[in-house]
Amino acid sequence: MTTDASMQLGMIGLGRMGSSLVKRLVADGHRCVVYDVDAEAVARSVGQDVVGASTLQELVGGLERPRVLWIMVPAGLVQSTVDELAELLDAGDIVVDGGNSYYRDDIARAAQLAEKGIHHVDCGTSGGVWGVDRGFCLMIGGEPGPVAHLNPLFRTIAPGEASAHPTPGRTGSAGTAPQGYLHCGPSGAGHFVKMVHNGIEYGMMAAIAEGLNIIAHAGMGRHVPAASDAETTPLRDPAAYQYDIDVGEVAEVWRRGSVIGSWLMDLTADALARAPALDGFAGHVSDSGEGRWTVMAAVETGVPAAVITSAVYERFASRGEGDFADKVLSAMRSEFGGHAEKAD
Amino acid sequence: MTTDASMQLGMIGLGRMGSSLVKRLVADGHRCVVYDVDAEAVARSVGQDVVGASTLQELVGGLERPRVLWIMVPAGLVQSTVDELAELLDAGDIVVDGGNSYYRDDIARAAQLAEKGIHHVDCGTSGGVWGVDRGFCLMIGGEPGPVAHLNPLFRTIAPGEASAHPTPGRTGSAGTAPQGYLHCGPSGAGHFVKMVHNGIEYGMMAAIAEGLNIIAHAGMGRHVPAASDAETTPLRDPAAYQYDIDVGEVAEVWRRGSVIGSWLMDLTADALARAPALDGFAGHVSDSGEGRWTVMAAVETGVPAAVITSAVYERFASRGEGDFADKVLSAMRSEFGGHAEKAD
Amino acid sequence: MTTDASMQLGMIGLGRMGSSLVKRLVADGHRCVVYDVDAEAVARSVGQDVVGASTLQELVGGLERPRVLWIMVPAGLVQSTVDELAELLDAGDIVVDGGNSYYRDDIARAAQLAEKGIHHVDCGTSGGVWGVDRGFCLMIGGEPGPVAHLNPLFRTIAPGEASAHPTPGRTGSAGTAPQGYLHCGPSGAGHFVKMVHNGIEYGMMAAIAEGLNIIAHAGMGRHVPAASDAETTPLRDPAAYQYDIDVGEVAEVWRRGSVIGSWLMDLTADALARAPALDGFAGHVSDSGEGRWTVMAAVETGVPAAVITSAVYERFASRGEGDFADKVLSAMRSEFGGHAEKAD
Amino acid sequence: MTTDASMQLGMIGLGRMGSSLVKRLVADGHRCVVYDVDAEAVARSVGQDVVGASTLQELVGGLERPRVLWIMVPAGLVQSTVDELAELLDAGDIVVDGGNSYYRDDIARAAQLAEKGIHHVDCGTSGGVWGVDRGFCLMIGGEPGPVAHLNPLFRTIAPGEASAHPTPGRTGSAGTAPQGYLHCGPSGAGHFVKMVHNGIEYGMMAAIAEGLNIIAHAGMGRHVPAASDAETTPLRDPAAYQYDIDVGEVAEVWRRGSVIGSWLMDLTADALARAPALDGFAGHVSDSGEGRWTVMAAVETGVPAAVITSAVYERFASRGEGDFADKVLSAMRSEFGGHAEKAD
Repeated sequence: MTTDASMQLGMIGLGRMGSSLVKRLVADGHRCVVYDVDAEAVARSVGQDVVGASTLQELVGGLERPRVLWIMVPAGLVQSTVDELAELLDAGDIVVDGGNSYYRDDIARAAQLAEKGIHHVDCGTSGGVWGVDRGFCLMIGGEPGPVAHLNPLFRTIAPGEASAHPTPGRTGSAGTAPQGYLHCGPSGAGHFVKMVHNGIEYGMMAAIAEGLNIIAHAGMGRHVPAASDAETTPLRDPAAYQYDIDVGEVAEVWRRGSVIGSWLMDLTADALARAPALDGFAGHVSDSGEGRWTVMAAVETGVPAAVITSAVYERFASRGEGDFADKVLSAMRSEFGGHAEKAD
Repeated sequence: MTTDASMQLGMIGLGRMGSSLVKRLVADGHRCVVYDVDAEAVARSVGQDVVGASTLQELVGGLERPRVLWIMVPAGLVQSTVDELAELLDAGDIVVDGGNSYYRDDIARAAQLAEKGIHHVDCGTSGGVWGVDRGFCLMIGGEPGPVAHLNPLFRTIAPGEASAHPTPGRTGSAGTAPQGYLHCGPSGAGHFVKMVHNGIEYGMMAAIAEGLNIIAHAGMGRHVPAASDAETTPLRDPAAYQYDIDVGEVAEVWRRGSVIGSWLMDLTADALARAPALDGFAGHVSDSGEGRWTVMAAVETGVPAAVITSAVYERFASRGEGDFADKVLSAMRSEFGGHAEKAD
Repeated sequence: MTTDASMQLGMIGLGRMGSSLVKRLVADGHRCVVYDVDAEAVARSVGQDVVGASTLQELVGGLERPRVLWIMVPAGLVQSTVDELAELLDAGDIVVDGGNSYYRDDIARAAQLAEKGIHHVDCGTSGGVWGVDRGFCLMIGGEPGPVAHLNPLFRTIAPGEASAHPTPGRTGSAGTAPQGYLHCGPSGAGHFVKMVHNGIEYGMMAAIAEGLNIIAHAGMGRHVPAASDAETTPLRDPAAYQYDIDVGEVAEVWRRGSVIGSWLMDLTADALARAPALDGFAGHVSDSGEGRWTVMAAVETGVPAAVITSAVYERFASRGEGDFADKVLSAMRSEFGGHAEKAD
Repeated sequence: MTTDASMQLGMIGLGRMGSSLVKRLVADGHRCVVYDVDAEAVARSVGQDVVGASTLQELVGGLERPRVLWIMVPAGLVQSTVDELAELLDAGDIVVDGGNSYYRDDIARAAQLAEKGIHHVDCGTSGGVWGVDRGFCLMIGGEPGPVAHLNPLFRTIAPGEASAHPTPGRTGSAGTAPQGYLHCGPSGAGHFVKMVHNGIEYGMMAAIAEGLNIIAHAGMGRHVPAASDAETTPLRDPAAYQYDIDVGEVAEVWRRGSVIGSWLMDLTADALARAPALDGFAGHVSDSGEGRWTVMAAVETGVPAAVITSAVYERFASRGEGDFADKVLSAMRSEFGGHAEKAD
């Protein structure tokens, strides 16, 4: 096997990520057999070097041995897919989980498949909507042998060395990291690194959001309440908060030349260009698991992670999960005022 | 002057705190002249050893020299009161600010009054509704002479040494702290210590509120959504969250024997006894300044204060001040999903 | 069975907590058989109504049925003790875990013992060194029958209704909470509530520590560095930080009348009275598990708990667990300065 | 005046930023007169279209009216430079502060210079070592007239529209933001936005540092202590923490294709390539003011900013500023253990 070899891959799941991977793979000379519960998604993907399958069994039947199966389905469906594959595959075949599974599940699934001699590789995949063109960053966990066997696929999917200028201090280092993929360690290591990656992403997103919110309040001194009351702390220095700054323009200017320029800032600028006051959004922010798991890994290993955790908690609070605590505080404050006094 | 001397004091402001102080003072043999913008409040206070005044001028006229004026008015009215007193008082008189002024204002007001030879003493006062019976904790700033002159008053207002068992390790220490009042330092030192005191109170309150909120969620595993979706992280171990715990009873039990038993817990238990779900409260928690100032002191002196600051921020967020940031996060997440993709 | 009945209890573990419980129990008319791996501890405990046992087997043999075994050993030894008891006890006997076990272990142990018909009750116990005199706060989980059977013991151990003034708003409520013990729910509920109790305690302790640290820095303006450098942000307003406040005296004064007065403040005042600069302490703060578990419960149920979590992270950081992150920051900052530039 | 006009500028300060700006300006056809307290720095800068000056007076004398003076000196020297320029300049001249001044100082300096008819423009400048090639992001505050007059200079210094792909949702918007510079509002608005920019940068840096620290601890389960003690919480699931992940390779792989790829990640990868364990760094992280000011703006306007604030506090703590608080916690814990007990 050489890293330049053309390979064949079975893709399970043809959502945004799965279909992007297929496009990128066939464009570089690999062949794919594809399956999705949505037959139309299969039909849309079929073409030069892409064969459709209408069942998992048919998908497996269309692959050369050792088979390579790449799972790209929602997290809640991975286990049932692995269970089915355990029945259909043979010793030596390789299952890649390219989704956002919890790394502890990888460890369990690798053990489950190992009982039949099937290999499990976990592959955290980052890239978003641009990945189909610029490539995806891959964080990989599993046994060295199967991971090495998949090298031509990883090399194709990843952005490649030219996608960023070389790291100046990196001299004489081998490894695939500069090509945008990395074998991080044994089973689960890939999703562990991807989990932390997303935790960092949460922190970065929150930093941007908090900063823009501060800028959005920079004109507070112009709206001094007519009369102050005991419940409102008056602004000590209204003259220092007289600005009316366009946050959308700020996000746009930060996209160029600034050290906080990033894909996340690009998204922010785009959203603000479309709706300057973000009126369409309620601000109930979902979280998809990796942030929570990152916090739990920090707590279990006794490592402080205040920034990432604050980002996760802000999302919880945005969905009203702190409301009871807030009511407790209001109730305490109300008690200060004398309810208890009357009863004494 | 002896610490047992009976003294005369002019009280400005007869709200809950001011009227409690007057009661406590006359009960211990001191005499008061009292003033409030609300003539009815004055009328209610007048009695044995309590003379009413209908103007500040009349109040000042009724006091022996050196006059002692105790200001107990809302923070927003202190400066105008000090300005008026500066016109009415004479060198040697003493103005005590017993409210929640910002300590930097004390420094400025002390300088303002010093120009006329009038002394300014800042006195942070804690005790809440129980203070009238058990005494108030006093944190005092100002020049040594005037502070010493007021000693009999402080001794009366404070709870006294018997109000807590002796600190075992405290041997051979002099000072008034065991009696419940302390001269903390020059002008502003009293309100500086009171400011931090309130910052600590914010942190303690938030710790209680967060903890009860966690307990209120201990039954989450019993309400598993019918179908999971990509936006909701399913609870990994629903069996571990099957409890239906009565938070009001928990607050009540913690009042006895527990190391977190405290006046704050008493208030919490009372509020939950009155309204187990705290239905009457919206959970928009006010903050009264000291918490903010504590954070700013921490930041200016480069001292980490994550707990106190988190407590302050939870209050800000409870009032919706983080909503724009949350919308930015939702907007970013929406962009992930492909709005930007379509336009590319 | 009546709540006034004298009962017999087998105590396993005679450390500070175990021996305090035994003293309190026999003082109220109960009888104890006691065991500890340390034979001297057993010898010290033996006396009126206290019989010693030199093995677990002997302890079990000395108890009337249904036997009540109270485990008060370090968390790491609970499982092996339960395993041994599972061999020695009979159906209907009751094992109480009075230590700081993780509530999920309670659930597993209850299931383990239920296989033999033995009951498991988890009992979070708070009270510290004062508990022997003033009673312990008990948070209890388990089946209603066995918990009700133990009622006379709980009533004796708890502080009793008179230990705090009645909650004014509590009218017509039944229940044992006002006596200082509470059946919180099924297996694990007691230790769940105790876990959160300790999380709150962490938050309260940190609030006090942070506040005193701010006060300890209140004189920073008096020590302005001779020359400023680009790496040091100069204090903008040194005049506002000229105080030299005695933190030990502040802690002492807060013990009386203040709304933050508490047992935790008592401990703080005592420590500062013994060593004003706390010289004997390195400041590497341990954490004993409940704080971490509280954070994990918050994260798993999606509830924000910023204050409690900050308190836990401050402890992690105090032990150097954030050092690598700090080095990463320093390294980034160093890179700003031009290392990368030279290589470009 | 046209935006394509060649202009003349006087640069004060020829450090890394100042000299980069000069190179960029002359490369685009502008002319500079330059001054620095270090005569050698002046000598190094002189060349085609760059004239050196040995005093501020000489610099001012060499400029056409209305003069444009660009101050690029350490924050601590800006005020004295402005004071000198106030004496040397004439009405209509423009002073640009391109450093990291506090925005409130801009407001004061603008008022100071306005007394002589001199204009003050504040210009936050971001770009780091790459700016000389790719341009700098400029955040500008001041009166519309002078800001418009400087447009050709800003256009040259900024990266230009081609430096990033267009924001898809931005249709029909005018303005200079897509070119990388923005007039944010009146005096101080530029440095206000730059201040928040740096606050966001602090948050992003901390998110990366925390994440890498978690990865660095992923092997903790392999180093279980021989014997557990009461002070150490044992890892509940050592099998989940068996990884030995190369953090430097992780930083490198995240540079390509990942949504957290950024200049900050580039710096991190470079630092780890040079010294994988970052041995040369003590981890005492400095902070340069903007982070603190961002937190204070958040607190003053009542806006939650938990992530940015946590990042600032982590830096304070890294320098030992939390040590006294940690000692207080250790002391409390020690008191739990019975010091107080002995004295009771």
